[in-house]
Amino acid sequence: MKKYQQLAQQMTEQIAHGVWQPGDKLPSLREQVANSGMSFMTVSHAYQLLESQGRIVARPQSGYYVAPRMVATRQSSAPAQVMPDNAVDINTYIFEVLQASRNASVLPFASAFPDPKLFPLPQLNRSLAQVSKTATAMSVIENLPPGNDELRHAIARRYALQGMTISPDEIVITAGALEALNLSLQAVTEPGDWVMVENPCFYGALQALERLRLKALSVATDVKEGIDLDALVQALQTYPVKACWLMTNSQNPLGFTLTPEKKARLIEILSEHNVTLIEDDVYSELYFGREKPLPAKAWDKTDMTLHCSSFSKCLVPGFRIGWVAAGKHARRIQHLQLMSTLSTSSPMQLALVDYLATKRYDAHLRRLRRQLAERKQLAWQSLLRSLPPEVQIHHNDSGYFLWLELPAGVDAGQLSARALEHHISIAPGKMFSTTDNWASFFRFNTAWGWGEREDNAVETLGHLIRQLIK
Amino acid sequence: MKKYQQLAQQMTEQIAHGVWQPGDKLPSLREQVANSGMSFMTVSHAYQLLESQGRIVARPQSGYYVAPRMVATRQSSAPAQVMPDNAVDINTYIFEVLQASRNASVLPFASAFPDPKLFPLPQLNRSLAQVSKTATAMSVIENLPPGNDELRHAIARRYALQGMTISPDEIVITAGALEALNLSLQAVTEPGDWVMVENPCFYGALQALERLRLKALSVATDVKEGIDLDALVQALQTYPVKACWLMTNSQNPLGFTLTPEKKARLIEILSEHNVTLIEDDVYSELYFGREKPLPAKAWDKTDMTLHCSSFSKCLVPGFRIGWVAAGKHARRIQHLQLMSTLSTSSPMQLALVDYLATKRYDAHLRRLRRQLAERKQLAWQSLLRSLPPEVQIHHNDSGYFLWLELPAGVDAGQLSARALEHHISIAPGKMFSTTDNWASFFRFNTAWGWGEREDNAVETLGHLIRQLIK
Repeated sequence: MKKYQQLAQQMTEQIAHGVWQPGDKLPSLREQVANSGMSFMTVSHAYQLLESQGRIVARPQSGYYVAPRMVATRQSSAPAQVMPDNAVDINTYIFEVLQASRNASVLPFASAFPDPKLFPLPQLNRSLAQVSKTATAMSVIENLPPGNDELRHAIARRYALQGMTISPDEIVITAGALEALNLSLQAVTEPGDWVMVENPCFYGALQALERLRLKALSVATDVKEGIDLDALVQALQTYPVKACWLMTNSQNPLGFTLTPEKKARLIEILSEHNVTLIEDDVYSELYFGREKPLPAKAWDKTDMTLHCSSFSKCLVPGFRIGWVAAGKHARRIQHLQLMSTLSTSSPMQLALVDYLATKRYDAHLRRLRRQLAERKQLAWQSLLRSLPPEVQIHHNDSGYFLWLELPAGVDAGQLSARALEHHISIAPGKMFSTTDNWASFFRFNTAWGWGEREDNAVETLGHLIRQLIK
Repeated sequence: MKKYQQLAQQMTEQIAHGVWQPGDKLPSLREQVANSGMSFMTVSHAYQLLESQGRIVARPQSGYYVAPRMVATRQSSAPAQVMPDNAVDINTYIFEVLQASRNASVLPFASAFPDPKLFPLPQLNRSLAQVSKTATAMSVIENLPPGNDELRHAIARRYALQGMTISPDEIVITAGALEALNLSLQAVTEPGDWVMVENPCFYGALQALERLRLKALSVATDVKEGIDLDALVQALQTYPVKACWLMTNSQNPLGFTLTPEKKARLIEILSEHNVTLIEDDVYSELYFGREKPLPAKAWDKTDMTLHCSSFSKCLVPGFRIGWVAAGKHARRIQHLQLMSTLSTSSPMQLALVDYLATKRYDAHLRRLRRQLAERKQLAWQSLLRSLPPEVQIHHNDSGYFLWLELPAGVDAGQLSARALEHHISIAPGKMFSTTDNWASFFRFNTAWGWGEREDNAVETLGHLIRQLIK
């Protein structure tokens, strides 16, 4: 094959792989010569060949473009299918449920995100614009782990307003709470260690344990009361547990918030058994009551709690900024971060600092809480109206999840698969546990705007459930 | 203790921990009442007590502020000390060397970063400002793994210009190349597996192996010729190696670029032994020759290479945007990312898309390469002038590192510790290996501006080396 044919074939492959798409401008002959090291003649021949094959078109005074596709190869807006096959490993299953809920044609009741439209985009964009004026070349280095100094101070002050003394030096800025939780777990465990989690719990905890080759010990957790402390004590007496990863406020997926007494007792028990607490507190700002609930860390007198949170669920998911108040582990966390992601984005940290300085955060949070409470109410009423009475809807007063219980024997995975055919996603209970206890449960996201489309979708859900009950 | 005394004590602790610093405005009485749930009287009493103790001051019409500190507790600009104690574990040592080079009073010859002043800050800021006008609420979801569609296309096109066909679907956007490399390693190994690295190599590779409990197999690597392929073959025949992590262009710390023939042969050998190549190619744009060198992946016909790179060394470190062209592993990489950091920042991805669309990137790269070549030349001449002739300076024609060899028996770790006392940092050879082969070597960063201060520092280095030789 001659050189010009080789180049033509290569570009044909690139077009087939979507590197260059119909209508894209191709590199000019001059650019192609500079890049390929081939002669002008060779490149020119290759382009002429492609043109004669109808793969590219020349536009006078402008250059070469990829020709329009002749056969449509993609179907538009068909929802991704989620296979409820138990042979599929659970991570793939979780991945597919979440991917499906990202498809714009699917109602995202399976989503873990709140509706991004709830966030103060204009103000955040103003902060971004501000950073674009003030960022210096050196900000990169200043914002390396543990992270921007002012941001860590701002976070420490929010703890202080709750009566907690957390030094900015104990705080490490991370890529969302998920990185904070992963780094925390890694900082305090070795592969093979036992780690206590709730049953059911946030699937990210189970995935992190698997990734770090840790052994999960699931403790029974009630939809209203939270973790069973007697079961916890028994587990701690039986197994050499190293750490305990749990949520004390607006637990995912159940929605409960532990009472102050229970938080205090939890700390007492873990402390007696010398078990580190990794506290996932990402929903702490989304309470519906009068006062922001304290984390369990507030009762910790012996620096045994790593408290992880973020701005992702209450202000801006896209910035990917979270943190861990890591106490004595702060240095180890920094090391681990420098080895894995190096640091979080410098402009994102600066934009948050700017936003927090505007003092609009608390007003935003008040509005957000009101909106979430309203939307949860609407969703709840719609579900009550349209689902068969055999379905139990476990209500709760914070965040944006509801936990629904189908009649025994009705499989939520099956419901999920059928619902997806109707462009509706839900999060089946098996995503949240390594046990089979939750096969007939599912989590329902209430954070998205409520209207006729949502009401209709819930009616469809009700219809599908009735079919499964028969 | 009464309630108001408790609050005063808590705030005293917060001030001691730096949560509130001298001159900071404290929460108003009203805010404190709202947050603490205490009465106005209690809060007011607490503030009066703190004022009477001289800890806070009231400014009329403005509020309460933390009083100035009476005793200075910090010394300014004392460089961090790096202990050349072999008992200290190597990760801590690396951490401390790098931390020291971040101190503004220290000359950062140890740094792994190029001088951020070399980057097109005004243009990047313009792109950031642009994003602040166009980002929508939904961009968050659109930019989840595998990452922004346009950005992945733009990267695929840069591969195409080098004659490589990489589909955008194979590309996953990551938090810099470091996350790309870590995820790649995790995607293709299990704990306990053998992984081949160069000796010496980028310390991040050794840290990643340790973090993932993998066994490192170091293969002899020459400062000019690169990895010893005979040694590689022998190693592959002896050990069940799963993956090979190496740099083919402008290797860190040595600086060599493998010849095309050697790259082809490398792929052939690894392919014969069914070993995955994780190719760290972060310096590929920093060549000084006429043509951009191809990665080894260009010779790979069997989809056995994960090619990792980023914009951090050649355009903008602070955005933390890198990628991996992961071929058949792209899906697994996405899963792993969703479990650990969830995704990279959405505005950062959008800003890069905007910048790349301005078509200024290549002009910037040409200027950057010229500046780096000039600076390397100046540093090299200065080193030649001032270091004793027994020091061998291994020159190379790309990137911004030089590899220096002290006379046998002279310890670069000791030199590093003494240099730091003079506010000069260098990167000792032991950072780059698990063996003791490189005790008398160090890496020298030439990317920072060169002037009298740098010349003087090199003279000091020469002086210190002469002392150690005696």
